[in-house]
Amino acid sequence: ANLVLLPGDGIGPEIVSEAQRVLEKVAELFGHEFSFSSQLIGGISIDKTGDPLPQETIDACKASDAILLGAVGGPKWDDPSAKTRPEAGLLKIRKELGLFANLRPIRLFDQLVDSSPLKRDIIEGTDILFFRELTGGIYFGESGRSGSGQDETAFQSMAYSVREVERIVRMAAKAAQQRDNRLTSVDKANVLEPSRLWRQTAARVMAEEFPDVQYDVVLVDAMAMHLINRPRDFDVVVTGNLFGDILTDEASMLPGSLGMLPSASLGSDGPGLYEPIHGSAPDIAGQELANPLATILAAAMLLRHSLSLLDEATAIENAVAAVLADGLRTKDIARGGKHIGTKEMGAAVVERLQ
Amino acid sequence: ANLVLLPGDGIGPEIVSEAQRVLEKVAELFGHEFSFSSQLIGGISIDKTGDPLPQETIDACKASDAILLGAVGGPKWDDPSAKTRPEAGLLKIRKELGLFANLRPIRLFDQLVDSSPLKRDIIEGTDILFFRELTGGIYFGESGRSGSGQDETAFQSMAYSVREVERIVRMAAKAAQQRDNRLTSVDKANVLEPSRLWRQTAARVMAEEFPDVQYDVVLVDAMAMHLINRPRDFDVVVTGNLFGDILTDEASMLPGSLGMLPSASLGSDGPGLYEPIHGSAPDIAGQELANPLATILAAAMLLRHSLSLLDEATAIENAVAAVLADGLRTKDIARGGKHIGTKEMGAAVVERLQ
Ligand SMILES: CC(C)[C@H](C(=O)O)[C@@H](O)C(=O)O
Ligand SMILES: CC(C)[C@H](C(=O)O)[C@@H](O)C(=O)O
Repeated sequence: ANLVLLPGDGIGPEIVSEAQRVLEKVAELFGHEFSFSSQLIGGISIDKTGDPLPQETIDACKASDAILLGAVGGPKWDDPSAKTRPEAGLLKIRKELGLFANLRPIRLFDQLVDSSPLKRDIIEGTDILFFRELTGGIYFGESGRSGSGQDETAFQSMAYSVREVERIVRMAAKAAQQRDNRLTSVDKANVLEPSRLWRQTAARVMAEEFPDVQYDVVLVDAMAMHLINRPRDFDVVVTGNLFGDILTDEASMLPGSLGMLPSASLGSDGPGLYEPIHGSAPDIAGQELANPLATILAAAMLLRHSLSLLDEATAIENAVAAVLADGLRTKDIARGGKHIGTKEMGAAVVERLQ
Repeated sequence: ANLVLLPGDGIGPEIVSEAQRVLEKVAELFGHEFSFSSQLIGGISIDKTGDPLPQETIDACKASDAILLGAVGGPKWDDPSAKTRPEAGLLKIRKELGLFANLRPIRLFDQLVDSSPLKRDIIEGTDILFFRELTGGIYFGESGRSGSGQDETAFQSMAYSVREVERIVRMAAKAAQQRDNRLTSVDKANVLEPSRLWRQTAARVMAEEFPDVQYDVVLVDAMAMHLINRPRDFDVVVTGNLFGDILTDEASMLPGSLGMLPSASLGSDGPGLYEPIHGSAPDIAGQELANPLATILAAAMLLRHSLSLLDEATAIENAVAAVLADGLRTKDIARGGKHIGTKEMGAAVVERLQ
């Protein structure tokens, strides 16, 4: 398989390189051929080419089987008056590759339950899979300004079409069938017209195509509450781009170990894009302090979702669990105890692969 | 002072009536005259008049010094195809009275720290005051549908003007000056044009008018995370209508006792509206199970913000703290232990007033 690596900024390069070592070991053990090509994205790409997502990167991604991304951004490129910003590269690649579904599993490793800010009896056993719509909604809506002085007004439009809702709801419902067969759709239908269309469309798709899946709807404000006091009650959750941005970040705090959470962005066909959900953490870059496990788990998702290599994906996940069971920790999850470096952690996972 | 009571639906009438008893006792103790007039809103108003907010209610509210609301809504009026819904009354009264600022204090009563889903070392000492913009943003933006079949698209526009941002930021900054002198503005300026206008405007107001207030900005997705793992770090938080809806509900779970949290909705002049943040809880209505303390604390906010009766407000808050210190609990905060009823709790607060 032909894999594109997008190391990006900050700790991106060091964590992607550990994930690459893990993938190389998987290839060796299971008899596959993975070829890797590294491409530019984000701040480093602005520095080198002026563009956070050069055409060359887009072309390489489109020709690939799957993409593994580190992280983009950093204070260096944060000037609000700058012509372009690293995040623009991220938004553009989602759109260019038609990656309309962002999958975020929120799961707790038993060994890390005590890292959670939540009490054990609330968080234990939490296992949610979020589907966030990623190429529509207010993110890509018409925007502009009018008027001046105190009357100057800025707007941006949230829009969803039946087609956009159908495809993400279908994908989420199919995933629910592989899990606990429950789907929750989150909207703000008591206030927003696009949410009303979302709710109607989702209800129809579920009734017509997935009558076996247990289905319910929750308002976004209520969901923000439920995630904190009864996270265990949810299986698969599907929602729009903006609500998904907020809710998945909220949910990502529940395990208390951001450095452990991967995500996948998928389209109907073509390559998927896989990445850790944490940021580029420029403050700790190059110091052997970054936790590579989220990126390594993103590589496992890549094997599962883009290459259909299920045993190989499970092998990586088991190796990560084994490393944790052996008490190995990077600084972010060590809770003040002994810790190892980025490369040591990558090597420990490689060692336990079989 | 001339006060309007809007008991509304579900447990609304029983909790408002306890708050009224508390206000009557305050009037007696401190030598004030409060007159009360009860008006219709919400589901009960739909049942009696066909309208969730009759003109008579609007007129009475406009002529009053302040308004105390119970709660609106319930499954009885939840039919999505109904002509009107209880929440429409809520949205309309905000707009009619120009209540552009929703204040939500998130504070922990020491006695209830263990009710929090968060670990004690994370939540202890949390004391945040949210200012949510309440009459603008996507809630009141242009909306509609176009196309048909799979192409049917629904939209709603998020808009903010400089004037709208200025007045809420000013109000929040003034409140910060009375507290710990720190203000955090929350937006999504990396994606949304109205957020960029919000960020520019807020920065200008703060630099020109409040150079003494410590000011920072946080993205809404990051804020959803921070509230869970470092809630103590925030003093006053200001944000738009939709983000405020989600974040204040998220924050309301942190104390673990929804039944204790009041809120206020204020305009530039005219009466303010005060209410508990919890809903109408129709499943427990009329069973002496409702916790009246949030509504009683809302009455304290009413005295402070609309009538400038600061000592009287503090007297109520102290009486509530005393009741908790004496171990009195309604069922929702009893954690399985002994509990008392709605009326008993109201009477206990009245008794401790001085
Ligand atoms: C960087 C930003 C534009 C992006 C988003 O809001 O989608 C990020 O928060 C994310 O969730 O991937
Ligand atoms: C009932 C609903 C329209 C309302 C809102 O979203 O503003 C509620 O959630 C609130 O926060 O008061």
